[in-house]
Amino acid sequence: MAERSGEFSIIDRFFSSGSAAGPWFCKGIGDDCAIIDFGDSRIAVTIDMLAMGTHFLPDADPRNVGYKTLAVNLSDLAAAGATPRAFFLSIGLPDKNDAWIEAFSEGLMELAKEAGCALLGGDTVRTPKNPVTGEHSPAVFSITAMGDLPPGLGLTRAGAKPGDDIWVSGTLGDAYAALKYRWGHWAAAPEAVRLMSRRMDRPEPRNALGRALLPLATAAIDVSDGFSQDLTHILERSHVRARVSWDDVPRSEALMSLPEEEQREAALSGGDDYELIFTAPPSLRKAVFEAGIAADTLVTRVGEILPSDGDGTSLTVYDAKGAAVILKNGGFDHFA
Amino acid sequence: MAERSGEFSIIDRFFSSGSAAGPWFCKGIGDDCAIIDFGDSRIAVTIDMLAMGTHFLPDADPRNVGYKTLAVNLSDLAAAGATPRAFFLSIGLPDKNDAWIEAFSEGLMELAKEAGCALLGGDTVRTPKNPVTGEHSPAVFSITAMGDLPPGLGLTRAGAKPGDDIWVSGTLGDAYAALKYRWGHWAAAPEAVRLMSRRMDRPEPRNALGRALLPLATAAIDVSDGFSQDLTHILERSHVRARVSWDDVPRSEALMSLPEEEQREAALSGGDDYELIFTAPPSLRKAVFEAGIAADTLVTRVGEILPSDGDGTSLTVYDAKGAAVILKNGGFDHFA
Repeated sequence: MAERSGEFSIIDRFFSSGSAAGPWFCKGIGDDCAIIDFGDSRIAVTIDMLAMGTHFLPDADPRNVGYKTLAVNLSDLAAAGATPRAFFLSIGLPDKNDAWIEAFSEGLMELAKEAGCALLGGDTVRTPKNPVTGEHSPAVFSITAMGDLPPGLGLTRAGAKPGDDIWVSGTLGDAYAALKYRWGHWAAAPEAVRLMSRRMDRPEPRNALGRALLPLATAAIDVSDGFSQDLTHILERSHVRARVSWDDVPRSEALMSLPEEEQREAALSGGDDYELIFTAPPSLRKAVFEAGIAADTLVTRVGEILPSDGDGTSLTVYDAKGAAVILKNGGFDHFA
Repeated sequence: MAERSGEFSIIDRFFSSGSAAGPWFCKGIGDDCAIIDFGDSRIAVTIDMLAMGTHFLPDADPRNVGYKTLAVNLSDLAAAGATPRAFFLSIGLPDKNDAWIEAFSEGLMELAKEAGCALLGGDTVRTPKNPVTGEHSPAVFSITAMGDLPPGLGLTRAGAKPGDDIWVSGTLGDAYAALKYRWGHWAAAPEAVRLMSRRMDRPEPRNALGRALLPLATAAIDVSDGFSQDLTHILERSHVRARVSWDDVPRSEALMSLPEEEQREAALSGGDDYELIFTAPPSLRKAVFEAGIAADTLVTRVGEILPSDGDGTSLTVYDAKGAAVILKNGGFDHFA
């Protein structure tokens, strides 16, 4: 589940309902995934909703929309260390545009096949008509994805310990920078735009890395709302603080062609990266690097977990001179 | 999953993907529920999407909206014979209206508690803004519900055999008649309106009956789109025909206060009933009646399954004089 501060408080206030579903054992409720045991079998389940015009530009290529709608769900499974197996899709459509839905499904099924994740059920409805304009509202998609986990294993946001290293997969900030370019707010060279747009349109869920981290990581989350906000979710659940070195935060060559100020905003607060943030004891550094190599995914150590100071969960990012980096905002909030 | 002819063909064309999710054994794909085995554990999973203005009147009481959003999903579990255990909710909201979402969640959690179904995860997003009116589009909800089944059991739409009885739970047509009244198309006495509106606003999922039918029924479906259309789904999957007696179709006193023509339209083609249609061998009539008594739910035998005549799957409804009843329409289709 993507969490966004303002909205999350809505769910949190009204919808949390304990830690058990009758005879089913569950954990991770409110995390990226709920983890449920059936006898010796353990599964992870996640739900996400995306809407044209909110999560996608109105003119987005439907192939990319289909691909990304599944990718953000598989990314939640990756944060739990789960291997994707099945998904359920509900779609609200403004009209019966067969060409659009065919292209959407091509992009969706391309990733589904690649990930070994089967579509097991669906529901299609028509979005409501606006009485003033006569138009039906834009398309909206909800996916529930399910993956499996080895018995007893599964990563959640809780579990980071003082002294743990903080790691990030891949590079951060490209998707946000691409969006700023598309909005006309930032400038960039054509090749940088192409690379960053690819990251925005086709995020790669890190399921192989998540699986490899199952015996190593103490906590994990995927970066949907922005590094600082998503790391803060780990800090809150784990009741710890963190110190991060800005110079160590991994950025692409494309992003590093932008001004430093924009790099900071994109990589620390931007979001839409679908990389993993995870924590692990320093004694496992070699094993974490090896997990990254096995999963063919860059892993970079960016900071360390500190004990709570009573106040609890603050994150500080330092530059090379030891000065605190001001975070542009607390991540994306739909209702802010 | 609610199926509606025109839309279902969209899913059917693009999204069906075989009968297995990697190492997971599955059946019922495209039915009300997918049934998945994990070792000795068997679960049923269903997804539905509902939108304000499409599935609910724009001024609907948010308590009823919350209740019904879960009820239609539990009804899908009932059609598989599954006992509700857990659900996942994604919501798209036009604005942060805490009073509305609080009332919505009250209705939702009222049924969740009653049914023993725990909310294990959620996602809240903002619906897109219309560039002309500046308004965000109406609220939309998607629920994925999960229930458990005894090993080896689980009802699907396939399995009805020539000679089987056709049964219906409860009474049909009230919800549709209430909607016609609300639209100003039909008239009714105040008490009839009250009773029928209750059926529209607060459908009772038939999970106790579905569970009791597990060892008895050969096929089952819930009535979301209308009796004739939903029974036809059983006929298509089971490769059989059916003959139904109009006089035997169970109707409430309230519905029977309306003209015969309106009763037929509501009960045979209306939809939104969330009753079960199921088939069972005549040798099990006594056991089916006992299952109805045990589940405190009326069950009525309305017809019989006939062999395919090559053409395959036609449904004929007869009146008391043996004349064929003309079906008003093939059920609800969002895109018709």
